[in-house]
Amino acid sequence: MKKYKAFTSIEAISFARTVPNLFLQDAILTSEEIDTGNSNVVFRIKDNDTGNSILFKQALPNVNVVDEPLQIPVEHTRIENDALSIQANYCPDLVPNVLYVDNDLSITVMGDYNDKIMMRTGLMSGGQYPLFPDHISTFLANTHFFTSDLGMNQQKKKKLQQSFVNPERCKITEELTFENPYYDAPENNIEAGLREAAQRIWKNTSLQYEVALLREGFLTHTQALLHGNLHTGNIFVTEETTKVIAPEFAFFGPIGFDIGAVFAHLLLNAAGQSHWSKTAEECVYAQEHIFAMIIEIWCGFEQQFRNLWNTRGVDRLSKTPGYQNDFMQRLLKDTFGYTGCNMLRHVIGMSEVADLETITNAKKRINAKHRALHTAEQLILHHRKATSIVDLILFARSAMGTTVNI
Amino acid sequence: MKKYKAFTSIEAISFARTVPNLFLQDAILTSEEIDTGNSNVVFRIKDNDTGNSILFKQALPNVNVVDEPLQIPVEHTRIENDALSIQANYCPDLVPNVLYVDNDLSITVMGDYNDKIMMRTGLMSGGQYPLFPDHISTFLANTHFFTSDLGMNQQKKKKLQQSFVNPERCKITEELTFENPYYDAPENNIEAGLREAAQRIWKNTSLQYEVALLREGFLTHTQALLHGNLHTGNIFVTEETTKVIAPEFAFFGPIGFDIGAVFAHLLLNAAGQSHWSKTAEECVYAQEHIFAMIIEIWCGFEQQFRNLWNTRGVDRLSKTPGYQNDFMQRLLKDTFGYTGCNMLRHVIGMSEVADLETITNAKKRINAKHRALHTAEQLILHHRKATSIVDLILFARSAMGTTVNI
Repeated sequence: MKKYKAFTSIEAISFARTVPNLFLQDAILTSEEIDTGNSNVVFRIKDNDTGNSILFKQALPNVNVVDEPLQIPVEHTRIENDALSIQANYCPDLVPNVLYVDNDLSITVMGDYNDKIMMRTGLMSGGQYPLFPDHISTFLANTHFFTSDLGMNQQKKKKLQQSFVNPERCKITEELTFENPYYDAPENNIEAGLREAAQRIWKNTSLQYEVALLREGFLTHTQALLHGNLHTGNIFVTEETTKVIAPEFAFFGPIGFDIGAVFAHLLLNAAGQSHWSKTAEECVYAQEHIFAMIIEIWCGFEQQFRNLWNTRGVDRLSKTPGYQNDFMQRLLKDTFGYTGCNMLRHVIGMSEVADLETITNAKKRINAKHRALHTAEQLILHHRKATSIVDLILFARSAMGTTVNI
Repeated sequence: MKKYKAFTSIEAISFARTVPNLFLQDAILTSEEIDTGNSNVVFRIKDNDTGNSILFKQALPNVNVVDEPLQIPVEHTRIENDALSIQANYCPDLVPNVLYVDNDLSITVMGDYNDKIMMRTGLMSGGQYPLFPDHISTFLANTHFFTSDLGMNQQKKKKLQQSFVNPERCKITEELTFENPYYDAPENNIEAGLREAAQRIWKNTSLQYEVALLREGFLTHTQALLHGNLHTGNIFVTEETTKVIAPEFAFFGPIGFDIGAVFAHLLLNAAGQSHWSKTAEECVYAQEHIFAMIIEIWCGFEQQFRNLWNTRGVDRLSKTPGYQNDFMQRLLKDTFGYTGCNMLRHVIGMSEVADLETITNAKKRINAKHRALHTAEQLILHHRKATSIVDLILFARSAMGTTVNI
């Protein structure tokens, strides 16, 4: 096993030269660091003559967010690369094209997706992605169905599960999503205007009861291999194409957790539209556009998932009349709940999202956060009563409407 | 790694001599094989001078019950020994005393429990075990609580889970419990007098709907480390003592699956009491004695589990008012369902139990099987409506009563 070391930009170029069939031997290569947060470094390495470029990604030792000793991230890269490879089996066009992997050094070399922008940034500047609902529902339905007991022999699934337990990354998610926001944790970043709302949440035992149920599902319901961190910062888009990146938090968990992540970040963007839109009409239009997208994603997901179940299902008993409907209803309820939990952690928690945080006008920013928080609370509180995706929109529209103030 | 080979009785003695502090160097040892089915061999090795004895257990290569290639059972022994060691942390008196382990050779040397008899045999001959409810509920409450997210740090639990995925053994359980009994599988042993009842079950989609839900829980609900095969053949008893043996099927699954296994085998015995009891009165008395034992086990389990939750719980959110009650109610429903599934597989399936199979009078045997089957069906069909353990007894009493015919 090679010894891990963090590569510099120059070392990344030297490494890329050793990978067969990547660049011509005498190519003049330049390297540019891309900002991706603090758990990875990504260099774009480019042959300026041909314009060809690749991404060199290396995981960094764990940052000490949850009292863990610094660890070499070999295991996370292995998980990310294995998850990418499984996802590529089912939706090759929707994930990065992995060209070379060195798990010992935590390095992944992949095709550049520089024609695309981060979906979060795109949505903030009014971008519209008409094919995104179809793409993301295809990604969700296929990766989830084929790694669940419905679409994979259960013994094979258990064996796969062994390599995706991912205790460290799950612990981070669990603390940031299901623990810290629900008490006055020192790690929470709560701006002054939200403090009272946070205190309301810390006292709301009805809400915490629902969160306890959702947390239990997150910890114990190993339905399918999830992406695990499916926010709009991990999705790159153009009007025609979509890439879902960075599944380093992949684990076997409840399917609704992944769908909920997508919905949560769309709704967080909707909550910020009072700033990102120029007029009140534009704001309502942008929000309604996002709501329509959510309905389209759910319906696309449900249709594809049911279709796979009916045509590719491996399990005899799962064809029992009524079971599929019951399963989809439970999945919808889960999706409501996890949408709410994911939204809430980004308002009362340590991970702010740009959709809200970069709103410069303090009053608008606080209002936007209240809208997000209110939506999150409604979704969590009522998740077990959900029967149709339309309910989610009704909750969101009502929660967003009551505080719109631009 | 040493190369696995199956030991003869003589080789087992030689091996035992090499284990430090087991026998005196010049002891004269004899070895006797104990019948334990076809997946292990167990020799009792005894020093006839002192009377001291130990059990030498070696796992045998997989028998080909579910289309698997023959495998050296190293992994199963490792799982069994690791599970025994975890169980011994919480209830040392209730599991075998492991003296020496060689996982490469699939050998476990343990203290002899020859003062005890197999509980199944004991019950068949009218034995009463007044301390058993307290012992088994202590075993269940402690081993489950401390390996669940309620009693163990969730990251530590996930790490532990990695070493108890147990795909092969779970596949066997899944096929024999949740698959084969629900269609005309070639592996099923169904005696002629039960064939019509089996056909009724194969057509009963309401029943299969409930089984599909329970199967999903078995496959995806990783609540706690289970024994995984907790029937009365894996429990050895005296009036004062209990040993739970052979957790080679251990895996992280739904807690109700283990409790249901205990209840199922007690109820299978109750169904056979028309033969094992001498008179109709004795039969009813024996059955009622078993029903009372089930109530005592559940209440003991519930009380201890809640007490551990309240005093040793590691999770803040799990203290949310109402959550514990909801959790226990879901656990009860699961227990009803898995009790039914476990009973049913031993009537319509490939694993007969001596409590029913050794009834020599054909009419009595068929009747006893009908009683068991009827009880199982009621428990499965109504498991999601269960609210009290008393319901289980009402179902069993009614199902047993309607067909008592001695």
